[in-house]
Amino acid sequence: MTSPLAHEQLDTLFAPESVAFIGASDKSMFSWLAFGVMQRFGSVDRTYLINPNKSRVHGTTTYASCADVPGGFDCAYVMVPQKLVPQAIDDAAAAGARTVVVVSSGYAEVDGAGAAAQHALVEQCRRHGMILLGPNQLGFANVGAGIAVCALAGLSPTPGTLALISQSGALASMFTLFAASHGIKFSYVATTGNEAMVSAEDVLNYVLVDPQTTAVAMFAETIRKPELFLQAARKAARLGKAIVMLKAGISELSARTAAAHTGALVGNDAVIDAVLRQEGVIRVEHMEELLITGHLAANTGPWARPGIAVAASSGGACDIIADRAQELGLPIPRLDPITENALRGVISAFGHVQNPLDVTGAAVMDPTLLGKVTAILATDPQVGFVAIIGGTDNFLPGVGQALAEAPVPGAFTAIVSRDLSGSTAEAVAAAHLVYLPSTRDAVNAMAKLSHWSTRLRQLQDKADERHPTTASLAPDLQLGTAMSEYEVRQLLQRAGVPVAPAVLAGTAAEAVAIAEDFGGPVALKIVSATIEHKSDIGGVVLGVSGAEEVAAAFHKVFTCANSLKPARQVDGVLVSPMRSGGIELLVGVARDPDWGLVLAVGLGGIFVEVLDDTALLRLPAARDDIRRGLESLRGAVILQGTRGRPPANLDRVTDAIAAIADLALGLGDDLTALEVNPLYVNGNEVEALDGLVNWRTR
Amino acid sequence: MTSPLAHEQLDTLFAPESVAFIGASDKSMFSWLAFGVMQRFGSVDRTYLINPNKSRVHGTTTYASCADVPGGFDCAYVMVPQKLVPQAIDDAAAAGARTVVVVSSGYAEVDGAGAAAQHALVEQCRRHGMILLGPNQLGFANVGAGIAVCALAGLSPTPGTLALISQSGALASMFTLFAASHGIKFSYVATTGNEAMVSAEDVLNYVLVDPQTTAVAMFAETIRKPELFLQAARKAARLGKAIVMLKAGISELSARTAAAHTGALVGNDAVIDAVLRQEGVIRVEHMEELLITGHLAANTGPWARPGIAVAASSGGACDIIADRAQELGLPIPRLDPITENALRGVISAFGHVQNPLDVTGAAVMDPTLLGKVTAILATDPQVGFVAIIGGTDNFLPGVGQALAEAPVPGAFTAIVSRDLSGSTAEAVAAAHLVYLPSTRDAVNAMAKLSHWSTRLRQLQDKADERHPTTASLAPDLQLGTAMSEYEVRQLLQRAGVPVAPAVLAGTAAEAVAIAEDFGGPVALKIVSATIEHKSDIGGVVLGVSGAEEVAAAFHKVFTCANSLKPARQVDGVLVSPMRSGGIELLVGVARDPDWGLVLAVGLGGIFVEVLDDTALLRLPAARDDIRRGLESLRGAVILQGTRGRPPANLDRVTDAIAAIADLALGLGDDLTALEVNPLYVNGNEVEALDGLVNWRTR
Repeated sequence: MTSPLAHEQLDTLFAPESVAFIGASDKSMFSWLAFGVMQRFGSVDRTYLINPNKSRVHGTTTYASCADVPGGFDCAYVMVPQKLVPQAIDDAAAAGARTVVVVSSGYAEVDGAGAAAQHALVEQCRRHGMILLGPNQLGFANVGAGIAVCALAGLSPTPGTLALISQSGALASMFTLFAASHGIKFSYVATTGNEAMVSAEDVLNYVLVDPQTTAVAMFAETIRKPELFLQAARKAARLGKAIVMLKAGISELSARTAAAHTGALVGNDAVIDAVLRQEGVIRVEHMEELLITGHLAANTGPWARPGIAVAASSGGACDIIADRAQELGLPIPRLDPITENALRGVISAFGHVQNPLDVTGAAVMDPTLLGKVTAILATDPQVGFVAIIGGTDNFLPGVGQALAEAPVPGAFTAIVSRDLSGSTAEAVAAAHLVYLPSTRDAVNAMAKLSHWSTRLRQLQDKADERHPTTASLAPDLQLGTAMSEYEVRQLLQRAGVPVAPAVLAGTAAEAVAIAEDFGGPVALKIVSATIEHKSDIGGVVLGVSGAEEVAAAFHKVFTCANSLKPARQVDGVLVSPMRSGGIELLVGVARDPDWGLVLAVGLGGIFVEVLDDTALLRLPAARDDIRRGLESLRGAVILQGTRGRPPANLDRVTDAIAAIADLALGLGDDLTALEVNPLYVNGNEVEALDGLVNWRTR
Repeated sequence: MTSPLAHEQLDTLFAPESVAFIGASDKSMFSWLAFGVMQRFGSVDRTYLINPNKSRVHGTTTYASCADVPGGFDCAYVMVPQKLVPQAIDDAAAAGARTVVVVSSGYAEVDGAGAAAQHALVEQCRRHGMILLGPNQLGFANVGAGIAVCALAGLSPTPGTLALISQSGALASMFTLFAASHGIKFSYVATTGNEAMVSAEDVLNYVLVDPQTTAVAMFAETIRKPELFLQAARKAARLGKAIVMLKAGISELSARTAAAHTGALVGNDAVIDAVLRQEGVIRVEHMEELLITGHLAANTGPWARPGIAVAASSGGACDIIADRAQELGLPIPRLDPITENALRGVISAFGHVQNPLDVTGAAVMDPTLLGKVTAILATDPQVGFVAIIGGTDNFLPGVGQALAEAPVPGAFTAIVSRDLSGSTAEAVAAAHLVYLPSTRDAVNAMAKLSHWSTRLRQLQDKADERHPTTASLAPDLQLGTAMSEYEVRQLLQRAGVPVAPAVLAGTAAEAVAIAEDFGGPVALKIVSATIEHKSDIGGVVLGVSGAEEVAAAFHKVFTCANSLKPARQVDGVLVSPMRSGGIELLVGVARDPDWGLVLAVGLGGIFVEVLDDTALLRLPAARDDIRRGLESLRGAVILQGTRGRPPANLDRVTDAIAAIADLALGLGDDLTALEVNPLYVNGNEVEALDGLVNWRTR
């Protein structure tokens, strides 16, 4: 069910020559809406309304059945009640239809019976060799080709460069209405609903290679085909096209793998969020943001520099944008002296020359001023984007011309939220300006674009994605079966992870001798493949010195499992030197059911509890991303060395984590978790002090 | 300059019988706008246009001078260039004007010369006994009284219950335009500009007591009269009226008091943010939020319960609102079984009965459905507010009627941002509904209202605000002069702060004897009123044991200041027992130039560096607020006891902090900082281990 659809299948779906509305009715809102879109797209002559009971619907002659349509049709747009859908599909197939778009609901979104009906629907379409969009959605539009088969209010036939994909039909209607009142134009619009055959990821891969499409906005409640999504994200990064995503349905973070701490840190949405960040997908929180960020991305592409220049006709707006930009990490760089001088030549004595630039009431006096200012700001060497905030219609031609000739993109922004209409809409269109409807929307969208552009450069530079192999990893260890800490240490060592010394003792005397060899205080830990939480049962004693203490600790540890049922095999007691004065990291890899192995790195010990501060990366991950993950930790400052502690050698730490990640990737599909806790770091010293693996139980 | 204006003076300002526009001109946008407002308010017959050069302006006969206006006028609205303002004011005064509203700019917002001109303006108005609004603003409207003297586009004469105060005139224009297209009505609008005489805080205090005004929205770049602001905030809390504030101009956090760590943590905006939270003022980030949150507050007042019920016509919108509500801490409680049963009686079989409630396409079929749903949701015992998201005009009467009869307030919300216009605007008005323009705006505003309602209950319960006195605090200590740690410890002890034992040693032998008495490892610290950073110069040695070590440490510490210039007086060496195994808090009080003493509480030691996690409270603060501050720390979890450490006795910790705060309040106006670092906490054990005071240098 999760195999990608061939490009040609989607070509067929998105370019029908003719369409039949099965269930067309004056009583159906969907029918009215879809017919209205057809009219706006000028496709009424290629649209057949099927209704066995009414000879006229929407003022147009109907056909009583699909068979009556002369020459048949390509696409069936099915609006009949759920029970009548199978018959409609059979009829459409008989009339030569190759694609079917099912608006009807009552399928998997409702209950088990609905899911069964949906399954039958897919089988039926397969038998007919038909491609199915839906059910429970509102259709699609291939705006560039002038084709729209959808019940989406407000959808404009003027093509744009943003593709919109929405699992929800209801929200897609809202999106097209919002777009219509904000100057946002689409190349494609597709609603995917229950995605019985065609999923949002299929469409995403398809529209990304459309040359007219320069960015994609996607609303999803679930990512049904993660592999396909990743493929699309990488394609988008290669092509420099943004994917902007509103992913709804965030659940409480929940434990994934019971045995490993990491599991508790790798909740579903946290993983999705990490994947989106890692792959350079722009995540947004609100519906307006989805469209406005998509609109901006589609019109600017990636920026050459992360910083923006701002010129606003209100000092208050300058302050607000500066405040929010600082919060969002959007750079508003200091202007170059050359830029400042040039600005002094055009703005009034009342203005202070700075970024953001308050052009004051002077802008009211001289309608060419904002254009001049735009042209100057756009040439500043630190500036990747110019935002013009506020201004009346008569400024727009100048701003538009300046931006058309500028080396960097820009946009015109209303100060406070305003639908784009009337004379302003005309002036914006005539000046070929990108319109952002408010300071709020502008600063959010610009921050997203700035960060995305930086991430894109990282992704495009990235040459070191890791592809480890399982070759000769652990010839004498049986992968897939429970392992003691002792065995895990061997695994880690062979994989190139630095591991603190530790020797297995079978008797108290051996333990004492080993401890003596190490010379300082030692830790003693029970070694058993079948005991996971050693310390919970007294299987760990830390910081003991001297023969007497070591011997006593050996006995305590060695016998701690005696009362457990069923009885556990105990291989001995591991004696290792204590480490102190450094920092403990937790490095865990856990398998997410959707996304595969996910690496979690955080500060260990008390910081895990206090900070809830973990960097997540889907594996394989680039070494640079691992390092960035480390540096992104809120607690990263303590890695830099504080209170007399030397700074951690982040190269070595990164190497150790990368080796752990490679090992996890090499351990095969049955691995559910691999954890090093702690990874001890003290300056140049980096050592795994303990390790744990978990396998899928079969 | 910061004395409050009398209520009567603002009565005079806000209720002129007649107005002269001095500088009325067809070439002036401000003049056109102000005249347009006058027309909309039906006050043209009480408005006189003064222009010495044109006999007609805006199609109306002018007067050549103020003296020509028969019977004079009350209020001068001055739009002439800055240089001509003094003459205009003299003329207006001669014509009997009692108030002057100066639109002209070029004053303190520009430079020193402008500031001087502004000062002269105030003096001139004082001489004439006139009240001055501005300069550099656009006027005011007392909408309830039908009076508007302002150049604010879009301002509607229909009165509402929200007062709007804006330091920025330009943004106020944007606010009134936004209000006009979103169904938001005002009781008052005032722009205060440079606030040479009348400040936003004056107006705030004034409008809060207006019975027609139920909430205030305020845009400010600076809070010029902090005392007056606090007075207003408390008045608002008593009256249950919300103040919603957009405070722009957030600066980088910067060190305030060089000597104390606390200083570094008490940046200007952090203090303002703390004050606003403490006083129950709602802070917002964007201009739309200011108006929408104000609008909601003005229409609902405080909620009886923090939870909301949501009914939406799209499942996707339900998901998004649930996601955002969780992030914002807005409760969407599980519905009561009685509510669920009642809902099952009215919604279709397709819908799952839950909160948020997706009413599905069923709502399209039955226009009475949303009203029924609203009525049921509003009676749920956990629900304080009902949000209806999406729906067509024909549902609105039912929703409006249900809310009118409901025990809790509610609002109708567009799914995706939409100006309120046409038939929807009419339907919303006819149904007496509160309109929120998008899911995004609704969830943000509801979260603010929910939190504010909770805070209001806390403030209204609050009976224990602290009013300490200086009586007999420290009869033998000279306040205002530098103090050694030894003296600070005495201060703390007398103020009821538990202090760890410590004894002053004058010789090594004394130190050894004292250490022996304590019995464990000790700390030795130099005692000198003139050394602030003891450890930087080697004046602190920690964890020494045994006669030899103690004696050596004594010598090291005692002589550490020998090389300092100028020479320091050393009173001896403080010997105190080491404490370990507990948690260290940092408790500091620093004086903010605007807001007075501010208490900062955070986790000490490494957490200060890592977490940047400090709770700030303006003093005096309620004991409950101190405790809430402690509990709000990101690191609060370690106070709850982890890794075998007992939970901190938060009552005792709160008592100690409250005693430190009381002491600071009692130490007089010269205190700039009082710091206890660390306050050691181990279960029931709470002790100050070190203390520091700083005084204003004179």
